[in-house]
Amino acid sequence: MAVQPEVEHPKKAFGWAARDTSGVLSPFQFSRRETGEKDVAFKVLYCGICHSDLHMVKNEWGNSIYPLVPGHEVAGEVTEVGSKVTKFKVGDRVGVGCMVGSCHSCQSCGDDLENYCPKVILTYSVKNIDGTITYGGYSDTMVCEEHFVIRIPDALSLEAAAPLLCAGITVYSPLKYFGLDKPGLHIGVVGLGGLGHMAVKFAKAFGANVTVISTSPNKKKEAIEHLGADSFVVSREQDQMQALMGTFDGIIDTVSAQHPLVPLLALVKNHGKFVMVGAPEKPLEVPAFSIIAGRKTISGSMIGGIKETQEMIDFAAKHCVKPDIEIIAVDYVNTAMERLLKADVKYRFVIDIGNTLKASS
Amino acid sequence: MAVQPEVEHPKKAFGWAARDTSGVLSPFQFSRRETGEKDVAFKVLYCGICHSDLHMVKNEWGNSIYPLVPGHEVAGEVTEVGSKVTKFKVGDRVGVGCMVGSCHSCQSCGDDLENYCPKVILTYSVKNIDGTITYGGYSDTMVCEEHFVIRIPDALSLEAAAPLLCAGITVYSPLKYFGLDKPGLHIGVVGLGGLGHMAVKFAKAFGANVTVISTSPNKKKEAIEHLGADSFVVSREQDQMQALMGTFDGIIDTVSAQHPLVPLLALVKNHGKFVMVGAPEKPLEVPAFSIIAGRKTISGSMIGGIKETQEMIDFAAKHCVKPDIEIIAVDYVNTAMERLLKADVKYRFVIDIGNTLKASS
Repeated sequence: MAVQPEVEHPKKAFGWAARDTSGVLSPFQFSRRETGEKDVAFKVLYCGICHSDLHMVKNEWGNSIYPLVPGHEVAGEVTEVGSKVTKFKVGDRVGVGCMVGSCHSCQSCGDDLENYCPKVILTYSVKNIDGTITYGGYSDTMVCEEHFVIRIPDALSLEAAAPLLCAGITVYSPLKYFGLDKPGLHIGVVGLGGLGHMAVKFAKAFGANVTVISTSPNKKKEAIEHLGADSFVVSREQDQMQALMGTFDGIIDTVSAQHPLVPLLALVKNHGKFVMVGAPEKPLEVPAFSIIAGRKTISGSMIGGIKETQEMIDFAAKHCVKPDIEIIAVDYVNTAMERLLKADVKYRFVIDIGNTLKASS
Repeated sequence: MAVQPEVEHPKKAFGWAARDTSGVLSPFQFSRRETGEKDVAFKVLYCGICHSDLHMVKNEWGNSIYPLVPGHEVAGEVTEVGSKVTKFKVGDRVGVGCMVGSCHSCQSCGDDLENYCPKVILTYSVKNIDGTITYGGYSDTMVCEEHFVIRIPDALSLEAAAPLLCAGITVYSPLKYFGLDKPGLHIGVVGLGGLGHMAVKFAKAFGANVTVISTSPNKKKEAIEHLGADSFVVSREQDQMQALMGTFDGIIDTVSAQHPLVPLLALVKNHGKFVMVGAPEKPLEVPAFSIIAGRKTISGSMIGGIKETQEMIDFAAKHCVKPDIEIIAVDYVNTAMERLLKADVKYRFVIDIGNTLKASS
């Protein structure tokens, strides 16, 4: 029988965990490993709630391991560093995103793309090298290999930095990789949730002309006046869509609900790029002619490597790119999950771990 | 009422045309325009039978105009040039591919990508600038704007050159554009028909390691021994496919029959490219994770521009890249169409127009 989470490691830890597919989170005693020579230990102060946390607590992707402590948008303050740690010292402001380990020897790792390493170790609910299960940032402390720790610049608050570590890099990376970061390009952003609103902000920071493509007409004012999008189109309005046909250099599609791709592909210029970062459950339906006729490209992209995540955070700090967040207490987390399911958040919940997570006696 | 094809233009012409959705071709009297000042007139000597001819004669894409003279892999000899023609003279060996006109003023035309011009004029069954219908190369003569005429190098026979003008450029262009033309890359070719066998030959000429991916085990010997592929995998054999997972830099999919994409996408390396040049009728089904997990790209590509077509023909002549053809008489064309439907040809029918098309009295 497996060792109990409370005692498998020497350091006591406390967080909130889902215990079954109900997804309901409740207080959970567990433990963290000793700070290894290349490890950084830190006090968690803030943790964003990512949409994938919602999928994971309910085992909707079929790979959840319970008890499950979610959270891969983690920010806090270093409390201890291992003897071989060179980049961080006690008191530093740091964060951890979706990964806490990788093989360090494959092509992807060599290319600073640990996110595509076949042995990548995700921040929660996977087996770590030592055989124990990883627990995420809905918890008081974390211990993480230095390589996967991101430095958070002083210009960025920890609560703002947290969501950048997943939502931010997930849209920043494809904008860069697919050459959609050049000033003057016309960039479309499909969906205005956690990912979408960050895509608008980064694309604007790169100097793009940004159009939000949404099913909800009532998001127009917000998208333009508050988020800074240049224009807004309702995807169900054929006239509006028709007027924009073939005008986008690239589109970032952040929607994970089922939706038709054909009208969106029609918006892309010849040789343009359509990038999926949301992952609808059912397969996308793509008529071959919709990509052949204009040599269009449909790509996927998944978070980003550590080097690029640091670059993204530094860019965000320099250009004041920050998520819009609603800070919540940890005991609000189940309500937050319900609201997230209804897309009732602008645009990211961030749990104030430091002030609201009460360590049990 | 429209003017009859026989008399709408001053020059008599003769070919074979389909009259209705039966697709059956029969002798057809029509006419060609006078050679304009920027036009090249030529005697057709050979014309390849493209799979799209089969779709078009039966109106399977819904845009056929009858009577329909197919043929967009046309090679012959110049008989007359207009006063402002600078590149060609009488007696030159020339060819015409899928296009005979475009707007010359849009972005695509400016970028030498006339194939993506929204006003591109296809070689047959579309309305030309003067309002008459274009007729293809299953005919004795053609008149074409100089810009769309390709010079065929002496090192290449006309019968070999003909299929390159569609099948050749259709695979050459994406191999170049998507960076799949570098020596040492691992390139997959799905389907071994007219397009597929050219993809193998061009990829080999670029120095790639080429694997043919086919549903037919009996094509293995041919693919390797005759066409020069390095290896062969049967797409229905899971063990063979499993062994190649994540090993291809790029795959060119030439199959226009319905087929599952997921096992093929799994063969592509992270950040690799999957290019559709065949166009199955039903939409492709693409699970988002199959492209997100490895930042993979699915693209389409459609023939190529005139400049690149000339480059391709010159490359083919220099590197002895030639299609495998079966030369037929024009009165065999209906049988050839039936055999093409059954994929019973290695690998392209070419009609010997010069020797077998008898002009009617």
